[in-house]
Amino acid sequence: MRPSGRRSEELRAIKLTPGISKHAEGSVLVEFGDTQVMCIASVEKGVPQFLRGSGSGWLTAEYAMLPRATSSRTKREVTQGKQSGRSAEIQRLIGRSLRSMLDLKKFGEYTFVVDCDVIQADGGTRTAAITGASLALMHALHHCHQHKIGKQFVLHHLIAAVSVGVHQNKAVLDLDYAEDSSATTDMNVVMDSQDQFVEIQGTAEGSNFSEIQLLAMLQLAKSGIRKLISMQKEILTAANIQIHAP
Amino acid sequence: MRPSGRRSEELRAIKLTPGISKHAEGSVLVEFGDTQVMCIASVEKGVPQFLRGSGSGWLTAEYAMLPRATSSRTKREVTQGKQSGRSAEIQRLIGRSLRSMLDLKKFGEYTFVVDCDVIQADGGTRTAAITGASLALMHALHHCHQHKIGKQFVLHHLIAAVSVGVHQNKAVLDLDYAEDSSATTDMNVVMDSQDQFVEIQGTAEGSNFSEIQLLAMLQLAKSGIRKLISMQKEILTAANIQIHAP
Amino acid sequence: MRPSGRRSEELRAIKLTPGISKHAEGSVLVEFGDTQVMCIASVEKGVPQFLRGSGSGWLTAEYAMLPRATSSRTKREVTQGKQSGRSAEIQRLIGRSLRSMLDLKKFGEYTFVVDCDVIQADGGTRTAAITGASLALMHALHHCHQHKIGKQFVLHHLIAAVSVGVHQNKAVLDLDYAEDSSATTDMNVVMDSQDQFVEIQGTAEGSNFSEIQLLAMLQLAKSGIRKLISMQKEILTAANIQIHAP
Amino acid sequence: MRPSGRRSEELRAIKLTPGISKHAEGSVLVEFGDTQVMCIASVEKGVPQFLRGSGSGWLTAEYAMLPRATSSRTKREVTQGKQSGRSAEIQRLIGRSLRSMLDLKKFGEYTFVVDCDVIQADGGTRTAAITGASLALMHALHHCHQHKIGKQFVLHHLIAAVSVGVHQNKAVLDLDYAEDSSATTDMNVVMDSQDQFVEIQGTAEGSNFSEIQLLAMLQLAKSGIRKLISMQKEILTAANIQIHAP
Amino acid sequence: MRPSGRRSEELRAIKLTPGISKHAEGSVLVEFGDTQVMCIASVEKGVPQFLRGSGSGWLTAEYAMLPRATSSRTKREVTQGKQSGRSAEIQRLIGRSLRSMLDLKKFGEYTFVVDCDVIQADGGTRTAAITGASLALMHALHHCHQHKIGKQFVLHHLIAAVSVGVHQNKAVLDLDYAEDSSATTDMNVVMDSQDQFVEIQGTAEGSNFSEIQLLAMLQLAKSGIRKLISMQKEILTAANIQIHAP
Amino acid sequence: MRPSGRRSEELRAIKLTPGISKHAEGSVLVEFGDTQVMCIASVEKGVPQFLRGSGSGWLTAEYAMLPRATSSRTKREVTQGKQSGRSAEIQRLIGRSLRSMLDLKKFGEYTFVVDCDVIQADGGTRTAAITGASLALMHALHHCHQHKIGKQFVLHHLIAAVSVGVHQNKAVLDLDYAEDSSATTDMNVVMDSQDQFVEIQGTAEGSNFSEIQLLAMLQLAKSGIRKLISMQKEILTAANIQIHAP
Repeated sequence: MRPSGRRSEELRAIKLTPGISKHAEGSVLVEFGDTQVMCIASVEKGVPQFLRGSGSGWLTAEYAMLPRATSSRTKREVTQGKQSGRSAEIQRLIGRSLRSMLDLKKFGEYTFVVDCDVIQADGGTRTAAITGASLALMHALHHCHQHKIGKQFVLHHLIAAVSVGVHQNKAVLDLDYAEDSSATTDMNVVMDSQDQFVEIQGTAEGSNFSEIQLLAMLQLAKSGIRKLISMQKEILTAANIQIHAP
Repeated sequence: MRPSGRRSEELRAIKLTPGISKHAEGSVLVEFGDTQVMCIASVEKGVPQFLRGSGSGWLTAEYAMLPRATSSRTKREVTQGKQSGRSAEIQRLIGRSLRSMLDLKKFGEYTFVVDCDVIQADGGTRTAAITGASLALMHALHHCHQHKIGKQFVLHHLIAAVSVGVHQNKAVLDLDYAEDSSATTDMNVVMDSQDQFVEIQGTAEGSNFSEIQLLAMLQLAKSGIRKLISMQKEILTAANIQIHAP
Repeated sequence: MRPSGRRSEELRAIKLTPGISKHAEGSVLVEFGDTQVMCIASVEKGVPQFLRGSGSGWLTAEYAMLPRATSSRTKREVTQGKQSGRSAEIQRLIGRSLRSMLDLKKFGEYTFVVDCDVIQADGGTRTAAITGASLALMHALHHCHQHKIGKQFVLHHLIAAVSVGVHQNKAVLDLDYAEDSSATTDMNVVMDSQDQFVEIQGTAEGSNFSEIQLLAMLQLAKSGIRKLISMQKEILTAANIQIHAP
Repeated sequence: MRPSGRRSEELRAIKLTPGISKHAEGSVLVEFGDTQVMCIASVEKGVPQFLRGSGSGWLTAEYAMLPRATSSRTKREVTQGKQSGRSAEIQRLIGRSLRSMLDLKKFGEYTFVVDCDVIQADGGTRTAAITGASLALMHALHHCHQHKIGKQFVLHHLIAAVSVGVHQNKAVLDLDYAEDSSATTDMNVVMDSQDQFVEIQGTAEGSNFSEIQLLAMLQLAKSGIRKLISMQKEILTAANIQIHAP
Repeated sequence: MRPSGRRSEELRAIKLTPGISKHAEGSVLVEFGDTQVMCIASVEKGVPQFLRGSGSGWLTAEYAMLPRATSSRTKREVTQGKQSGRSAEIQRLIGRSLRSMLDLKKFGEYTFVVDCDVIQADGGTRTAAITGASLALMHALHHCHQHKIGKQFVLHHLIAAVSVGVHQNKAVLDLDYAEDSSATTDMNVVMDSQDQFVEIQGTAEGSNFSEIQLLAMLQLAKSGIRKLISMQKEILTAANIQIHAP
Repeated sequence: MRPSGRRSEELRAIKLTPGISKHAEGSVLVEFGDTQVMCIASVEKGVPQFLRGSGSGWLTAEYAMLPRATSSRTKREVTQGKQSGRSAEIQRLIGRSLRSMLDLKKFGEYTFVVDCDVIQADGGTRTAAITGASLALMHALHHCHQHKIGKQFVLHHLIAAVSVGVHQNKAVLDLDYAEDSSATTDMNVVMDSQDQFVEIQGTAEGSNFSEIQLLAMLQLAKSGIRKLISMQKEILTAANIQIHAP
């Protein structure tokens, strides 16, 4: 029995709310149960030094938590003078995953900056962030298309992400904080809309995991990600945003 | 004529939404038109070094903006390795103002930490933050009272804040960004529920201001703050939270 | 009775000593009683990034205290790796105030950097700094005029600053440390040579202040600032430095 | 055909040289081909704040590259004032992996600090580091056992790590830099001496990977890690260091 | 012929002005020609971590330059977030030299902090600083003696310092900036009142120096330092400050 | 009797191993007894800002210790966010010394970056570093010559360095850690292949030193440095690297 009473293959209540920012080119509030992340995609002219003159675009992601997103208050990173190793690790994962969505080399010298700010944390913030950011990025791409920013349509595919784990010796999908903190394996999986893997990060905590457990977790992840991508598609269709080259 | 079409003594649409955080002792989303600030009050055991053993409580505030709260994206302060001078100045103002609400010497060694994170900026973020934080702090105080945290009821009074300014040679109340960026004077006023001043910060920008203009601005501020405090009181009454010592 | 024995409208002994630096374009040692601040104005070619190509000049101020300016030693800010919030707040005030003196848009791409270093602190360092820096800046402007630096005469007016406060329920002028640390209101006022306000920053400490107290403090500030500006003018006249466009 | 001419399941020349430090409790120079990492395990009295009084031990790892470990010189992290995100991510991986080797709760309040400094980089530095650090840690444990440091024998199992990837559409083992920089998938796998997974981190670069490719990579990783662990065991046996509780 | 017209063995005009700070236990303004350094000695209860419980005292020195001490303005170190290597090197030299004056082990757990802030720089700031700081420290020691701070009289001897160099192939004493910037050797010598060396730091710049040149420089340094120490003694005698154990 | 049993004029076993890096233009592992330093010389196109357009080359050195180079582990400097004063002081010494070897003004706009990383410390790391770095720099110069990098042959002379000191009242050569920590004077001497001084840094520790002791130390240093330079020359000759202009 899971702490939340969910079945092992059951996602939490998922909510994707686009259009939450007056200023940004793309914006989504993503909720996986009580986990809430604001995903804001900005488009800026120019690229980092190492790409100047290349004609290629770039995408970078930043991840942070508000101090009281957690059950006890966490100090602001700026107060410590530097980002935590955890945040650095997570935003690198988000950035790599989102870059896999686009053929940036063909876009021209623009940078997508995707900010993922955790408003409330209850487990799975990085996978929620990727799922919301993928959708926010689609809105920003659409904005570019409509405002003739960038050279061509550069979308490869949508992506989404979910966590899986081994809890009480059983593979489970989409762990909340209660489950996450007692799971013996925690794995984050990012997949695309063709069922291919973008990123897998599995970590044993307390006891190592077997190949059989790994395969069980991957099956759960695949089914969860399919549902998340289908929710993204519904929202995009409703907003009349294309996901295929015209 | 003001850019927003408002009368000179007219506030923007004000919204105070308490209870937005699952974890925090007090939390309020404050909106002054399109300006949105999350005000989160946490209560922690212990006080800073300089008060240890004194039996006194403490209150500190932190202020930050999400990167895309503004119309073009601002770099995160943690990326620069330090807080901007502007944020430092604002959070010192918020902290001083909120400390004036309480008789912390009598509370015992607890620290209130009030986080004001600007979700969306359209002028007046610091005064919105103080107005929302005052209410969030009341909820946190109430939480303390109910959970027997702290030695006694230490509230002096409620506070609220609003900006005033000189725009096209006329004193106006509650400037939005369009107005703020062309005003020749920008003044932030914090007052308490007895019409006393907690803090006044007036700055000329472009041309200096006369004593007559100062007085006109102060009158507008007083009327605006009275309305804001009355909204705070309605919410507290509805939630059955006392504002007088029992 | 004030701790210093002064009357409520009486300034401390004020001393403005120009020409203290061999290297700088303008330099003044300002003393308000035992408070001593070195105000050094430098002129540099070029402007910050955001003004390049605009033809406009810029002015920036920096404020710091020597470690033993205070009665017990304060750690150097560089040792902490960053400026304190207090210093950031003060130097922003000084910079804004000094920029109001000049029509920088018409000056050409030069930057005035005004360093205010507190040698000894006994209350009122920020207002002493502004008063001394205003004079140091006049010397630097004069230097520019004589060496054909900058496009034209860009002075609007002189400025000076003084602190006022409520001490033992009475408005007083120019608080020293003994008074400042027990005052219930502390207000810093910056005015120009036409009796207009440049900046007002009033802060309640311990008990909030009424409109009547505010007005009484403003009257004291005005009279004090008039005296300071007249001292500045005497020094400028003696040095044959013009304060009106030729 | 691989750039190095190796077969797809072939490791580079592996060398593990223990005892390279005069001072440290455990030390190993690990070489995977031209990749060279110094792995130095120190034992210190005391644990971090969050474990004080718990009776539990702790282990932390640090990872860095010498500036010219790479083909063009990389700036020192201390010059930038902070660790790179990449280093932070890698040292967190090393630390988590090594902690899985030990039952630290039963060890008493000592901290193992394992420094992995890359002397020369040619791909696979993090997996080489884990493989060498696992052995260095065994030497440090042995040192503790002989000097009566710590409460009991706390080893769960040995671990080792290797990289696998998809290169020219084929799964390959132990990528060097030439291969790594053109591979479409890069995966780091950490396993224990019971064939269980400690950590899996797979990243698509350029094109995403299928479940079949994932399984092929995992098989290669398992065979490679078995060889590495058997090399570790030989060295430990030769040095008369036990890997089972007495 | 030296740029200043001085003879090779001639010091600049030297001025030592004690008592410049209202707050500090010892304070001296030292001038070597146009070089001006404020030397402020503070006495604080307590010692750094590594000496706690040892009964020993400690002394530490800090060195900094005001931004416009130099002919063109230098950025503040705090703005860069860290001290320059040059300042670090100089303050370590000052600290080591001053510690040689005292038998701190016998003093009890107090720390002398000596701040050397360069008001104006014209060559030889570090040696001027040591000469002034030695005197400021004597005043602070005297203060301790009179206020029964510390366990006993711990003075070994006075020290002073001067720069020497090779200019136009000739050894010269006490280089000013004009000379220093064209000298081929620059050497700083610290000696005590018994003609013993405390510290020698000689650096070739442009062409290396011979043993004969070294000896010539050392002779000049010795004669200069004797004069400086005799000036220190006069001031101490006039102030009735003892330099021998009672 | 010295702790190591050496005669007062006897060097430790010295070993200079060139060619230790696959990537660098010049590289040497230098060993003075148990002190081991990797000296890596890189050549990069371009020069710092202050030399751009001058046609001159530049050389800079960096010095660091691996955490467990010392008998107990030292924290990484990057963890503290900044370099220690000791490292800053040492790398400035190394850089100045190496710059004296070359006529960089005539080389063209290239920068030599020489990294000295201490693998194991047992006293004398800075002098070992200079001795090894001088040789590594020769290899890098040779590389430049062979690859037509730089405008001409710019070598002035070889340099080497050694520490001397006063131990048990006797001058001794090349102090190891045991000796260094109880010596009353520690002096580092850098000389060139013409017996001229490049740098002298002598520091009293515990008791000051006389002119006679100074001269005795200098004689020891000269004889030691001659031996070191002759070892460098043997290696260069064996490698067919010229030390005179062709």
